[in-house]
Amino acid sequence: MPELRRDPITGRWVIISTDRAKRPTDFIRESVQIKGVPMCPFCPGNEGKTPAEILAYGRNGSGKDTPGWSLRVVPNKFPALGIEGGLDREGEGLFDRMNGIGAHEVIIETPDHQLTLASMPEQALEETLWAYRDRMLDLKNDRRFRYVLLFKNHGEAAGATIEHTHSQLIALPIVPKRVREEVDNSKRYYIEKERCIFCDMIRQESDTEIRIILNDEHFVALAPYAPRFPFETWILPHQHSSAFENMPAPYYRSLARILREFLARLDATLSFPAYNYVIHTSPIGEEINDHYHWHIEMMPKVTRVAGFEWGTGFYINPTPPEEAARFLRSAR
Amino acid sequence: MPELRRDPITGRWVIISTDRAKRPTDFIRESVQIKGVPMCPFCPGNEGKTPAEILAYGRNGSGKDTPGWSLRVVPNKFPALGIEGGLDREGEGLFDRMNGIGAHEVIIETPDHQLTLASMPEQALEETLWAYRDRMLDLKNDRRFRYVLLFKNHGEAAGATIEHTHSQLIALPIVPKRVREEVDNSKRYYIEKERCIFCDMIRQESDTEIRIILNDEHFVALAPYAPRFPFETWILPHQHSSAFENMPAPYYRSLARILREFLARLDATLSFPAYNYVIHTSPIGEEINDHYHWHIEMMPKVTRVAGFEWGTGFYINPTPPEEAARFLRSAR
Repeated sequence: MPELRRDPITGRWVIISTDRAKRPTDFIRESVQIKGVPMCPFCPGNEGKTPAEILAYGRNGSGKDTPGWSLRVVPNKFPALGIEGGLDREGEGLFDRMNGIGAHEVIIETPDHQLTLASMPEQALEETLWAYRDRMLDLKNDRRFRYVLLFKNHGEAAGATIEHTHSQLIALPIVPKRVREEVDNSKRYYIEKERCIFCDMIRQESDTEIRIILNDEHFVALAPYAPRFPFETWILPHQHSSAFENMPAPYYRSLARILREFLARLDATLSFPAYNYVIHTSPIGEEINDHYHWHIEMMPKVTRVAGFEWGTGFYINPTPPEEAARFLRSAR
Repeated sequence: MPELRRDPITGRWVIISTDRAKRPTDFIRESVQIKGVPMCPFCPGNEGKTPAEILAYGRNGSGKDTPGWSLRVVPNKFPALGIEGGLDREGEGLFDRMNGIGAHEVIIETPDHQLTLASMPEQALEETLWAYRDRMLDLKNDRRFRYVLLFKNHGEAAGATIEHTHSQLIALPIVPKRVREEVDNSKRYYIEKERCIFCDMIRQESDTEIRIILNDEHFVALAPYAPRFPFETWILPHQHSSAFENMPAPYYRSLARILREFLARLDATLSFPAYNYVIHTSPIGEEINDHYHWHIEMMPKVTRVAGFEWGTGFYINPTPPEEAARFLRSAR
């Protein structure tokens, strides 16, 4: 019998097909393979092919926009938003608009074209997390912005257009709808119960352990109770923390380790799938609060999403999260 | 300069790239082509390959589950939900679940494997709309259901797994999140202004006409102000009407005509794209109201949706709706 399950944070119901549950091998379509390309704009030596760098790590005296870096942040060459100008908010009858002001940056996580987040040294992954933080903190000084969104598209099926591993960041003058919903819903929960709903969820999941994938001193990786996608996974800090960018220094190594371990298991289980992830943190100006709990949402790209899902915000997931967690726990 | 626009009904903001706006030819990827298949389960003569029919039109004395029909409705052979049993709603700490009870049916719109909604006779398309209504009204008698969702996936890229043209219907014991949001938001608007927000939108759009694609006595096809996808289109009745299934009889012919005309123009503009559509009507038990206005949402499948969109409910659309409307108006 399939099940209808409700996500406690968003209120979204999903269908979980517990009957004809799909096993990992049912999903294997195309593995993400690094083939190499002749003139990769993200490879060392080709720094001139990107806009001028905003930030680089690892330069021991090497000049800006030259080789020698271990991580490099540049503006997106084809940005979705423009950085110059005022917002010019205006109404037009029923409609509201403003100029598409924002930052759109690319974090090139390693100079090595052959690596992925799962195969790069833990140290490089930790640097990536520090770069996320540094760019977020810098962009938050711009009073036009309300949210900095960090995300990664891995593999063509997940929307990556450049093969060389990279993350992206978009600073926005509005708070995205789904984040706004999560923050508002968790605030309502807090007002009622004086507890963070994410902390409650982590406690409940830690009791049963059936949806826990990885667990260490600082972080937990779990399959949410009502996932939209097969093998959807959230990584959250155990301790209540409302903003990614305010994470204590010792956590970076820990997060790099669990992220890398998770991605290696995902690769082993689903044979190098494409995936997306996105960091959900508190909106700018509401960073310090008791109700919202920052986390990473991981979405492996193994099924096609059809009109049903688009038109309704209602998802059918052929893999129960308990199964997904079991496969990922025992991977390798 | 790109623009940020807000959809007045859902409150969702989107980025519209007005600068580097994409032209229809930039999108053309794979045309949906009907190739024919050896043993199509939806072709006449193969009725035994589907579960027993629920409804058929056009039978002049031909027996159930034999050829002779002009339209046929059957249960989905691999349903996402089960039809037998009780809901057994239960809580489990923070989580809520119920049995996955529901109907999942397939509407085979024509016996002719070669046709599409855009190429079939208007009469066949009108029959399809009547079948939508007949099945909705029948399923609404089942007290377990709160919503009947009608949708179509056209082409493999849009999630269609069987080539022979068909629509699908899912009856659900819950109201999908996006529909619930639309209904609640339009209710709030009505309480404040004593007007339907959709009626207001149609009036405002009819004044400027820049986003109007087609317009006739009963229906309007328009590009919404803040579309998520290139060439996203909504078809709405001019007159306030809260439920598709209560549409007056003369409207069926009219809706069939505008739907067919729209799809033919879409085929001409984007070279036979894959698409999804979904009917948004009022939830069961709230069919007659002044605030919600039923409509069809059309989503051509021309771009890939990446992690950014999934993680945030925030979309980047490279085609301004004014451009999309202009291309579709002048198509053919």
